[in-house]
Amino acid sequence: MKKLLLLALLCPALLMAQKNQDSVFIKKISDEIMRNGKAHDLLRELTKGIGGRLAGSPQFTKAVIWGEGALKAAGADKVFLQECLMPNWNRGGKDEATVVLMNNEKTARKLDVLALGNSLGTNGKTVTAPVIAVASFDELEAKKDLVKGKIVYYNHKFDAANIQTFRSYGEAGQYRRNGASRAAKYGAVGVMIRSLTEATDNIPHTGSMSYNDSFPKIPAVALGGYDADYVWKLSRQSSFQVSLKTNGHFLPDAVGHNVVAELTGSEFPDQFITVGGHLDSWDVNEGAHDDGAGIVQTIEILRTLKELGYRPKHSLRFVLFANEENGMKGGNRYASEAKDKNEKHVFALESDAGGFTPRGFGFTMSEPQLAKVQSWLPLLRPYGTESLTMGGGGADIGPLNRTFGTPIGGLVPDSQRYFDIHHARNDVFENVNKRELNLGAVNMAALLYLIDQYGL
Amino acid sequence: MKKLLLLALLCPALLMAQKNQDSVFIKKISDEIMRNGKAHDLLRELTKGIGGRLAGSPQFTKAVIWGEGALKAAGADKVFLQECLMPNWNRGGKDEATVVLMNNEKTARKLDVLALGNSLGTNGKTVTAPVIAVASFDELEAKKDLVKGKIVYYNHKFDAANIQTFRSYGEAGQYRRNGASRAAKYGAVGVMIRSLTEATDNIPHTGSMSYNDSFPKIPAVALGGYDADYVWKLSRQSSFQVSLKTNGHFLPDAVGHNVVAELTGSEFPDQFITVGGHLDSWDVNEGAHDDGAGIVQTIEILRTLKELGYRPKHSLRFVLFANEENGMKGGNRYASEAKDKNEKHVFALESDAGGFTPRGFGFTMSEPQLAKVQSWLPLLRPYGTESLTMGGGGADIGPLNRTFGTPIGGLVPDSQRYFDIHHARNDVFENVNKRELNLGAVNMAALLYLIDQYGL
Repeated sequence: MKKLLLLALLCPALLMAQKNQDSVFIKKISDEIMRNGKAHDLLRELTKGIGGRLAGSPQFTKAVIWGEGALKAAGADKVFLQECLMPNWNRGGKDEATVVLMNNEKTARKLDVLALGNSLGTNGKTVTAPVIAVASFDELEAKKDLVKGKIVYYNHKFDAANIQTFRSYGEAGQYRRNGASRAAKYGAVGVMIRSLTEATDNIPHTGSMSYNDSFPKIPAVALGGYDADYVWKLSRQSSFQVSLKTNGHFLPDAVGHNVVAELTGSEFPDQFITVGGHLDSWDVNEGAHDDGAGIVQTIEILRTLKELGYRPKHSLRFVLFANEENGMKGGNRYASEAKDKNEKHVFALESDAGGFTPRGFGFTMSEPQLAKVQSWLPLLRPYGTESLTMGGGGADIGPLNRTFGTPIGGLVPDSQRYFDIHHARNDVFENVNKRELNLGAVNMAALLYLIDQYGL
Repeated sequence: MKKLLLLALLCPALLMAQKNQDSVFIKKISDEIMRNGKAHDLLRELTKGIGGRLAGSPQFTKAVIWGEGALKAAGADKVFLQECLMPNWNRGGKDEATVVLMNNEKTARKLDVLALGNSLGTNGKTVTAPVIAVASFDELEAKKDLVKGKIVYYNHKFDAANIQTFRSYGEAGQYRRNGASRAAKYGAVGVMIRSLTEATDNIPHTGSMSYNDSFPKIPAVALGGYDADYVWKLSRQSSFQVSLKTNGHFLPDAVGHNVVAELTGSEFPDQFITVGGHLDSWDVNEGAHDDGAGIVQTIEILRTLKELGYRPKHSLRFVLFANEENGMKGGNRYASEAKDKNEKHVFALESDAGGFTPRGFGFTMSEPQLAKVQSWLPLLRPYGTESLTMGGGGADIGPLNRTFGTPIGGLVPDSQRYFDIHHARNDVFENVNKRELNLGAVNMAALLYLIDQYGL
C-alpha cells in the first residue's frame, strides 16, 4: 500500500521531469538547426548546382549521387539505393509548347503556356481549331455536342475564400489530371486549362495528367493567369481559334533510385521510423519548394541528431524518394521492399508542401494515436506548430500506409504562397526563406524525437 | 421558478445562436475580403504610384491626399485630417552615404551602406579613420580607451535561435538607436553597424537613431550582411581604415497629417474603436510591408464592413498615422486631440508588423479583458489566428494607451521574413503576397467586429 502511494506521488513528478527533459532536448534541436543549419546551403547546391530533375533526366541521376553524398556527410550509419524503373517523359525542348490565339485575321497573340506533364505532343504538326471555353465539367457535359473538332479551354478558378489553399488545389486538380480525356471523349482535338494557381502573374503551372486509353490522346497545356483571364473574357464576347503545337513524348523507361540513409536503433533496430521528401521535381524550375525543401530538411534532421549525439531507440530512415511527380515509382518501391523484407514500420513523415513557415502536422492514424501526438502540442508550440489534426501524410509514404496500415504524417507549412510557385518556373531557390525552411526541420525533428522516445 | 428554469435552459441555446451568428458574419467578412478585396490593388497604387514617403517628403503629402480619397471611396461616413508638425530629415540624395574600406595601399572596397535615419552628415567632407570593431556595448566599454579618433563598428548579430524575430530585433535595436552617441562619448568620429537583419544578402537596412546632445553628433551608417561579415572577419585579422561620407540633414519641420475616417456608431456614437497603420515609410523603399500593408488593410476593413452593410454599435475610426518612423508625431497628435476632446476610446488596433500570414494578436489590456478576447479564439481560428496573448499593440496607438489606459492590440503576422525587408530597399510591392495581406485584414476585421458587438 505504501509503495503504491509512493508511486502515485512520484509519477507526476517523474512525468514532469521527463517532459522537462524533452523540452530541453527539443530546444537543443531548434538551436542547432536555427543557428548552424545546413539546409539552406544544401538547397542552393541542389537547385543552383543541379536544377530541375524530372524522373529520367540526367539531372535526376546527378541528384541521386548528390543525395548519397549529402546523407553520408550528414553522418548516416549507412546509405543505400533502392532501384526503380521510372516513366521518362520529356517535353521536347525549350519551345516545347506554342499556343497562338487568333482573334480574327488581323490579330494574333502568343500565349505563355506549358504542356502538362505526361501529355503527348502534336507530332510536329500545328493543331488549329476553334476554342470552346467552359468553367467546369458540368458545362462541358451540357455543351458536349459542340465539342467535336474544337480545343476545349477549362477556366476552373481557385476559390480565394478557401483559407487552406490545398482545398482549392484539390477542387481544381481534376481539370489538369482528367480534362484532356474528358474532352477527347466528345471529339476535342486539344485542351487548355487555367493554371492551378491564384497568383497575380502570368506564369503557367505544369503538373501531372493522364489519359484514359479509350479516347484519343490529345495535347494539353496550362495557361498563366493573365492569359487565362484574356481567353475567358474573349470567349464570352466572340469566337476565336488557337494554333497549338506541343512536343511531349515518352522515352524508354529509366532506371532511378530512392536514396535511403539509416541511423540504426539502439533498442529496436528492426523497427523503422521514416522521414523523407521527393528528390525529383518538374523540369521547368529548380524544384526548390517542391520538393527541394523536403529533401534538405530530411538531411538536416539527420545531421542535427548526429551532431547532438542522439542515439535513437528505433532505426530512423531518411529517404529521398524518386519519381513522385509523374509516376510514384519511388514511394511504391519503398513500400514493396518493406513488404518483401517483412519490415516493421512504426511511423513515416513527409515534407512535401513547401519550405514555408510551419503551422503543424496532418496525420493518417488511429484516434488514440492522434490523441497521443496531440498531448505533445505544448512541446512543439514554441516552434510554430499549432495544429495536430487528422488528415494528411505524403504521396511517397502513402504506399506504406496502404500496405501495412503504418501511421503517417505530413508537415503542414503555411499554404498561402504555395500555389504561387507550385510546378511553375518561379519555384526557385530565391523564393525559399532560410528561417522558414529551418523552422520546418525543427518541428519535424522534434516530432520524430518524441515518436522515437514514446512510440505511438 | 419556472421562468428561471426556462431562462437557464434557454441561455446556452441563446449563447449558441449568438455564437453561430458571429461565425456566419465573420465568414462573410472573410469571403468578401478574400474574393473581392481591394487591399492588394490599393497597395500597388501606394507603393508603385507614390513610393517611399518619409515624413516631410513630397511623397508623404501625396500619400495623405491618396489616403483621403481611398477612405472616402471605401465608404466612410466622414474623413478628416489631423495636422501635426513633423521632423523633416533628408539623407541627401542617391549617393547619400559612401564608405570605402582600405585594407592597405593596394586594395579598396566600397561597402553597400545606408545612413541611419536622423543621423547627420559629414558636411561634404570625407572622414577617414581606423576602424575598431566590437560585438557589443560591453566590448566597447572594455575598449573605451582605444576608441578616440576611430570609427566604431558594431557587429551585434541576430540570434537565429530566437523563434520570434522581434526578440532579435529588440536585442539589436540599441546599437542602431544609441550606438553613435555611446561611441562619440569616447571620442569616436563615426559609427557603422551591422544591419538589423539576418537576411542572406548584402542589402543594408536603415532605421531611426537619435543623438545624446552631450556628445558630438557623428555620422552613422548600416552595412549589409556580406559587408558586415567581411568587416568583422578583417577586424580579427588586421587593422584597416575606412573613408566615410554622409549627407544626412534636417530641413525645417514640415506640416503633415493623420488621415482619419469614421463609421458612426449606432448605439454609442461617442465611443471609439480605432484601427490603423502608419502612412509614412522610409525613403529608400516602397514601404510595402512597413507599413503599406497596415494602411491598405485598414482601408479594406472599412470597405468590407460597408459592403456588407454592417452598422457598428460604436464609432469605428480608420486611421492612417503620420510620421511613425522617425518622430511619432502622428500617434501623439491622435492621443492629444482625443484628450482635448475628452473622447472615450474603447479599443485600438494596429497592423505594423508586415503583411505576412497572420498568426494572432498581442494585447496591452487587463487580464479580464484578455480572457474575454481569448474566449473568441474558436471564432478566429479558422482564419489563421492561433494565439491571443498579453504583450503588444503598436507605436501609433501607444500614446492612446498611455493617455487613457485604452486597451490596445497589434496584429501578429508570422515574423520569419520580416527582417529580410524591414527598412531595406527590398521592402517593395512584389514581396507582399496578396492572400497573406488579405488574411491579415480578415482577422483584424473579425476581431473589431467582436469588440464592437460585445465590448471589452
